[in-house]
Order: sequence, then structure tokens, then C-alpha cells
Amino acid sequence: MNGAQALIRTLVAAGVDVCFANPGTSEMHFVAALDDVPEMRGVLTLFEGVATGAADGYARMAGRPAATLLHLGPGLGNGLANLHNARRGRAPLINVVGDHARSHKRLDAPLESDIDAIAGTVSGWVRRSLSPADVAADAADAVAAAARGQVATLVLPADVSWEDGAEPADPPSAWYAPGPDERRLDEIAAVLRTGEPTVLFLGGDVVASEEGLLAAGAIAAGSGARLMCETFPARSVRGAGLPELHRLPYPPEMALAALAGTRHLVLAGASAPVHFFAYPGVPGTPVPDDCTVHLLSEPGEDGVVALRELCASATPDAKPQLQEFERPELPTGELTPRTMAAVIGTLLPENAIVVDEALTSGVGLAELTSAGPRHDWLSLTGGAIGDGLPMALGAAVACPDRPVIGIQADGSAMYTISALWSHARERLDITTIVCDNGSYAILEHELSRVGAQGDGDQAAKLLDLGGPSLDFVAVAGGMGVPATRATTAEQLADRLRRALAEPGPHLIDAVLRKR
Amino acid sequence: MNGAQALIRTLVAAGVDVCFANPGTSEMHFVAALDDVPEMRGVLTLFEGVATGAADGYARMAGRPAATLLHLGPGLGNGLANLHNARRGRAPLINVVGDHARSHKRLDAPLESDIDAIAGTVSGWVRRSLSPADVAADAADAVAAAARGQVATLVLPADVSWEDGAEPADPPSAWYAPGPDERRLDEIAAVLRTGEPTVLFLGGDVVASEEGLLAAGAIAAGSGARLMCETFPARSVRGAGLPELHRLPYPPEMALAALAGTRHLVLAGASAPVHFFAYPGVPGTPVPDDCTVHLLSEPGEDGVVALRELCASATPDAKPQLQEFERPELPTGELTPRTMAAVIGTLLPENAIVVDEALTSGVGLAELTSAGPRHDWLSLTGGAIGDGLPMALGAAVACPDRPVIGIQADGSAMYTISALWSHARERLDITTIVCDNGSYAILEHELSRVGAQGDGDQAAKLLDLGGPSLDFVAVAGGMGVPATRATTAEQLADRLRRALAEPGPHLIDAVLRKR
Repeated sequence: MNGAQALIRTLVAAGVDVCFANPGTSEMHFVAALDDVPEMRGVLTLFEGVATGAADGYARMAGRPAATLLHLGPGLGNGLANLHNARRGRAPLINVVGDHARSHKRLDAPLESDIDAIAGTVSGWVRRSLSPADVAADAADAVAAAARGQVATLVLPADVSWEDGAEPADPPSAWYAPGPDERRLDEIAAVLRTGEPTVLFLGGDVVASEEGLLAAGAIAAGSGARLMCETFPARSVRGAGLPELHRLPYPPEMALAALAGTRHLVLAGASAPVHFFAYPGVPGTPVPDDCTVHLLSEPGEDGVVALRELCASATPDAKPQLQEFERPELPTGELTPRTMAAVIGTLLPENAIVVDEALTSGVGLAELTSAGPRHDWLSLTGGAIGDGLPMALGAAVACPDRPVIGIQADGSAMYTISALWSHARERLDITTIVCDNGSYAILEHELSRVGAQGDGDQAAKLLDLGGPSLDFVAVAGGMGVPATRATTAEQLADRLRRALAEPGPHLIDAVLRKR
Repeated sequence: MNGAQALIRTLVAAGVDVCFANPGTSEMHFVAALDDVPEMRGVLTLFEGVATGAADGYARMAGRPAATLLHLGPGLGNGLANLHNARRGRAPLINVVGDHARSHKRLDAPLESDIDAIAGTVSGWVRRSLSPADVAADAADAVAAAARGQVATLVLPADVSWEDGAEPADPPSAWYAPGPDERRLDEIAAVLRTGEPTVLFLGGDVVASEEGLLAAGAIAAGSGARLMCETFPARSVRGAGLPELHRLPYPPEMALAALAGTRHLVLAGASAPVHFFAYPGVPGTPVPDDCTVHLLSEPGEDGVVALRELCASATPDAKPQLQEFERPELPTGELTPRTMAAVIGTLLPENAIVVDEALTSGVGLAELTSAGPRHDWLSLTGGAIGDGLPMALGAAVACPDRPVIGIQADGSAMYTISALWSHARERLDITTIVCDNGSYAILEHELSRVGAQGDGDQAAKLLDLGGPSLDFVAVAGGMGVPATRATTAEQLADRLRRALAEPGPHLIDAVLRKR
């Protein structure tokens, strides 16, 4: 058995049975070995950022890693932005990065580069397989490392892949996130008893879990603490029957207002919030100076158990306040971010997965879907735009029976637009709604926010997506995804109904009025 | 004056007056400052790999660096593959990578990453500007570093950009590549006198220069040495009136055959050749064991002067053998790589810039254009596919009066497809011919070459671009580039004639028969 075969068999035995791939010459033995191990599903992407973003989305929904297959340093580089997002969201993920054969490394061939250095910037674990005899154990270690919520990168020299003498390794033993710390529980129970203004700040595993949310809701109801969620949770479960959960707003002034007066911030599954960017004259975090931050569980620990135990000790008899089922009215007329959100809120199907890279066009979206049918919501965790279309691919591969709705800013869509082809290739039930406002609207906001003048032509031209306008219907059609355009709320509702009813991928170009 | 303004003024004063940009929030002051310094031309790209590839193409044709403007670590990551190509081709290039404000770094905000580590993998020079007072001098040093034929990366914290107290710096003094070494000249002149089988192996500055090629041709004519060119020169000047120059073939067995029997390999502007990839049982380089390698000039030295002096001492009276003007016949019928090449050879306009990312579809292309009208040829230097469409953008910005013809493999086109939008935005005379064979044909070759079996469905599916087919006419149209399709040689000739006659960008989807 050669190294590639042993590697793939080890991954499959450890539950890693999907590989988002964009291979090159040095990965040909891995590709060939896929025919020997049919349990591993290879999903072709036309760009590495699609592969890594898909693995991110897959991990969030499957709760276990997918592999990627990438071609040397440049391939890893192309995947880096979405690996950054995966790292920020603690998605378990395994990169297999092909490299030159060991004998070829010293020759400084044209594709030679420092793969290990590139990998180190996004990975919690990096290893280079040194021989066919090692590769399976290396793969098992990669699975174990990924299970801790990190990107694991295994560099696979071509000859380690092609040489014989390898055997599969046993899967690693399961990893359990650490549970709650008694001292922390006591400290926070005491804080809750003070009655001082307290925010339970939730994220990570807690907001991805119905049980976590219900426990947090009970604590809030019993103690008077407010619930708040990190701005961009990797995955949150939402809908009627769950507590209402406000996200910390993105704009610094709104985030500051949201936490004003808070004396205690209790972290469950989340880190203490900081602003996305610095701005002249604005503090770096929205946490008030006189607010004490208490750690119940940090990312990587078992926040659900911690909340359950906190609830049992601090508010044993409390019942959470739950949202009644409610949808917005179907809007009519002009298509704006708000009416777009209302259409989505009205038509959101049961058990959907919403992939949110709407950015500025997402105004109202969270609010108008909050009390609808149960769904999962995936956000852009690391701020590296271009994760939306790939994440939808990965989420749909992980959950083939659930409808996926991608709400996708137009400028951001262009970074990884070829993901649409993979949507079509895999015949996935993904409906992409492009928020087509013809600009990098977020940067128009930011340009004024940072105090820059930028009222001239040169600056404006760098924020505008017009001249020529992007025709997403044509682009999607060219990649095999049926596409339509909507310029009114009624049209959007009509297109969305039809897209959801029909199997396979669709794209709707939602032309938003510029405000 | 703020840091951004001083930075841009310093760049402009040093002759760096084009910036290929894909900015984000941390770059807003740089963007705003473009309105204060109208001499700097900002060119928007929709993906960072387009910006870096464009800067690569610009540098090759302008002979001086452009700047890129990239957004933190993920933006740099997206640009990494084409920076790899730029590094391999020794293109001078200046990255300006925005970063968080200095006060924000310690907060580990979502977009925080190790920019310096990422930059180090492709840059010959990396610096982080520490204050507005430093930034202009840093920019001047970046220009000086780039002039040595390397990627220079300047990390620009947002507050260094926005704070006042900066002043422009003087441009750096010009850099001159080192000239020839007397001892080397004498050694090589002696080699040429032996009459033993010798190859003059040319690359870099030598093949980009008419004078360099004529000197090399004279040496060959006078000594009996053969001329050969590196496989993927960054830029080569070609056409009637110049010596015929064979490139070292890409496939190892052909490269080995091309150098078989050679006793002396004289390097002028090139490194000693190695195979792109290792293969089981194949040596890593095509240089015969009993061949001595002699260095006349290495990349970064002045190879043209070295060849001129070698010619003066070794073969003073020799005249180069020059190609007579010759074009192929206009072919008819089926569209294959060969007939496509003949159409291009027949219609190649005077003074064109050819951007070659044809890969397997480029068979015959070099041969059938070799003795045509004078033109420049840009190759994929580092093997990171997806440089073609961006390079065409940069070359056309550098040389607005010259027609640019991009010959672009279909799979490779998808990595940076949004470059087409920038072709349209800038209204450039670029004609892209997509070599549409519906597959990663190079990998089909490679899969069999590495001895992998891979005759099953899974492997085949990862090399095939069908199901659905990519419709490049639709995709290009959706990005504002008028596009047509050709399925016969006659149609291709018709489409190409029209595209070349009409201003602005065009795309022709050349549907090649699968062989």
C-alpha cells in the first residue's frame, strides 16, 4: 500500500470522509488513491479558497473535519483567507498539502516555496510527513489535532505519497472538551445574585446548541441578566421556541451603546468582544471600563455543560423566555435590504441553513428571521470575505437533506465565485441570493467613518462595482447554476419560492436600490 | 500631511505611479489619499490575486514596479500565488498591506493574523512601518529593494496611515545590475574554443533584450554553441530579425533529450534547469552527469553586457543567424491546439504582447509565432496557475498602445476570472483566447505520467471540468467583456480579426477538440 492509500484509509477510519480538492501534479497519487478508497468522497473545486471555505462550512454543520487537498505553497496561499475564517471560528479542518518529492526539495524548482511558514499562520498543528511509514500516524494525529477545534495541516511530499510500505493507522481516541471549573461557577453564581447589570455573552458551542441556549435563557430569566451573542458566531441555532438572542452590533458606537452600563460580562463560549477595526478616537473594545469580565467557559471548553451547571446552582427553578413563532408580513414594492430581509423571513423553510455574508445588506435579517422556523445560521467569523459561497457548498455536502440559503454581498461573491460551479457539479440544494447594490458599500461607510475625505473620483472609483456592472445572472448561468433577477420584493418572493421548490442550486440576483 | 499621503507621494516621486488595489477598511486613508495625489493611478481589482498578477505583468513590461494595495493577512494570502510567480520571475513589485492600528494589534481582533510571516514567504524585503515619520523613508527603501528584482512588502498600520506628521522622502538612487566577471568571461571563452558540445542557456534579462539575443546569436554562430532558452522566461522578445530560440521543453524526457550530449552549459541570465516536478525513477534535472555548468551571469546581474563582452572577446567577427519573416498558413477545419496556434501565428499583430498560460494547449504556439512580427512573450514563471488574465491586465496598463493577446487555459482561467471585469473597467485592448478543452488536461497527462492508475470514476471526476461545462462566453459577458465562441479554425480567425480590430477587451472561447 502506498502512502496516499494509507493516508486516505486512516482518514476514513477516523470519520473524515469528504475531501474538497483542487489538486496538481504533486497530488496525483492522492487522486488516484481515491479510486481505491471509495468511502472518501472527493469534491472538486476550481479554486483553493472554495475548497477551504467548503471545509469550513462542512465542519460547522457536520461537527467533524473534512479534508482539503491543495497544491504546494501557492495552492495553500489561495486557500489561506478561508482558513483564516476557519481558524477564527474554531472549525476542525485537515489540509493535505502536496509538496515536491523529498529528493526534489533541494533543487529549488519553480514551485518551491516555504509551505510550512504559510501553513503556520493559520494552523494550530503543522507536520511534514517524512516517510510512507509515518504518513498514516501523521494523519491520525492531524485528526486528533483538528478535533480540538483547529486547522491541522499535513504536508505530503509526492514520493511519500507514491512509495509503498505504508499501513493505515488506528483512529485517534475521541477528544472531550474540558467541562466547567467549580471556582468559576461559584464566582459567577455570586455575581448573578448581586443583581448588578450583567450580560451573559454567548458564542461558540453555546449558541450552536439548543440546550446551551435554553440554559442561558433560564439563567437570564432567573437572574435578570441580559443575553447577548458574539457578533459573528460560527454557527447559531435560531427560531421559535428558543430565547431571543441579540448579537453585539458591528459598528463600534452601536456596540458601545449595547454594553453601556454593564457591570459584569460573563463569557460562555465566547472571548471578550473587541471592535473589528480601530478608529481614530474610539476605544478598542466595547466593554465599559468599570465592567468586570468573568469567564464561565472559553472557546474550546464545554460551555453547554458549564451553563447547565451554572443554571442548576444559581437559578434552578427559572424557565427561559421563549420566542413565539412569528414571521414578518410579505413586503411589496421596492427591494431594499429591509424588504429583502422580510421576504427571506417570510419564506424561510423549516430546518434551513442560512449562510450569511450579506455584510451591509444584512440589516434587519437577523431580526426578521429570529422567531421563524428552526434554522442554523453561519456567519463570517474572521472577516475574510469570500467565505459565503464556499461555506454553502460545504454545509450542503454535510447536510444534503436541508435547504441552504446563502445571502451573499455582491463584492464579496467575486472572491470565490467559482464555488457556484461546484454547487452545480454536486447538484446541491443551495439558493444564493446576491445582495446586488453595485458597490463595496461597507467601504463607503468605512471611508466616511475613518474620517477620510475621499470625495474625489479616484477614491470613489475604488469602492464602486459599476462601469461595467456585474451581471450575476450571466455569471451564474455560465457556471451551470440557473439564475434569475429580482428588482421588487414581489419578484424576490416569487423567485425564492421557485428556487426553494426546485431541486439543485439556484441564484437570485436581488437588485437593491442604492440608498 | 498624513502617512498615507506621504507614502503615495514618495512612491510617485520614485516612478511608482500605478496601484492595483483591493482595499478594505484598514486601507481607507490610503484610498482617500489617492484623491490628493492624482499622479498615482488606482486600478480596482475584485480579488487580490488579480492585483498581484497585474503588478507582475506590469513590472515585466514597464521594467519598474507597480504597487499593490492589499487588506491584512487574508488579502495578502489571496495575492500569494501570483506573488510567488513574480518572485520566481524576479519582477520588481511593491505590496502595501494594510494592518490594524498599532493600538489594536494586542486585541487579537477577528482579522488579526501574522502578516509578516505570510509576506516573508514571497518577499525579498519586508518591513512594518512604525510611525508616520518613518513611512516615507520605508517606501523609498521598498522601491530600492524592488529595483533589485524582488517583491518588497510594506506593512502599513491604519493609524500610521491616518496620523499626521509625515513628509515625503527622496526617491532612492538608481540601482545597476552588476556587470560581467572577467574570470568567468575568460573561462567561458576558453570553453567555446574547445568546440565541445555547448549550450548557451539564456533567460531573464537576456531574452527580454534584442541586444542580448543578437549577442547570444553571434556567439552561437561563431562558436557552434547551441542557443536554448529557459522553459518559462518572464519576458522574451521574439520575431523575425532575431535568432531562433528553442525553449527547454517542459516534459522531463523531452528536456533530457534536448540536453543529451551537452558537455558545457553556459548560463546567461538563467539558473541551471531542473524539472518542474519529480517523477519516480527520473533524475531531478535534465543536465547530463558529464556536463559542466558555467555561469556567465546569474539572474539579477547584467547578462546583456556580459554576452556583449563575451562576444567581443570570443567571437568578435561572428554574425548571428536571424529568422526570416514567416507566418503559418491560415488553417481550416477542426480547432485543435495546433490549428489554434496557426491562427494566432497568422494573425499576430505587430508589436503585440502575448501572455501565455495555455499550458497543454500551447503545443505549437511558440514555433508558429517565432518568425512573425516582433512581439513580447510573457510566460508563467512560477507554475502557480491563474496569472494569465491578471498579467494581461498589468501588461496592458503598462503598454496602452500595444495589443495584448492572452492565451489562457480554461481551468487556470477560473482562479482569477474576475480579472476580466478589470479588463473592461479599464477599457484595455486585451483579447483573451480561452483554450477550452473542458478539463485539467495537464493533470490527465500527469496522472498517467506519475504511474498512478486512476482509471476509476473518482479520480477522473477530479480532472474533468464538465458536468456542468463552463460557458466562458456567458461568464465574460457577465463581467462586461464582449465574448464570442469559435469551434473551427475559420471561426477563430474571424473572431480574432474582429477582436483585434475593435478597441477594448474581448474574449474568444476556443472550443478545442478533445484528443
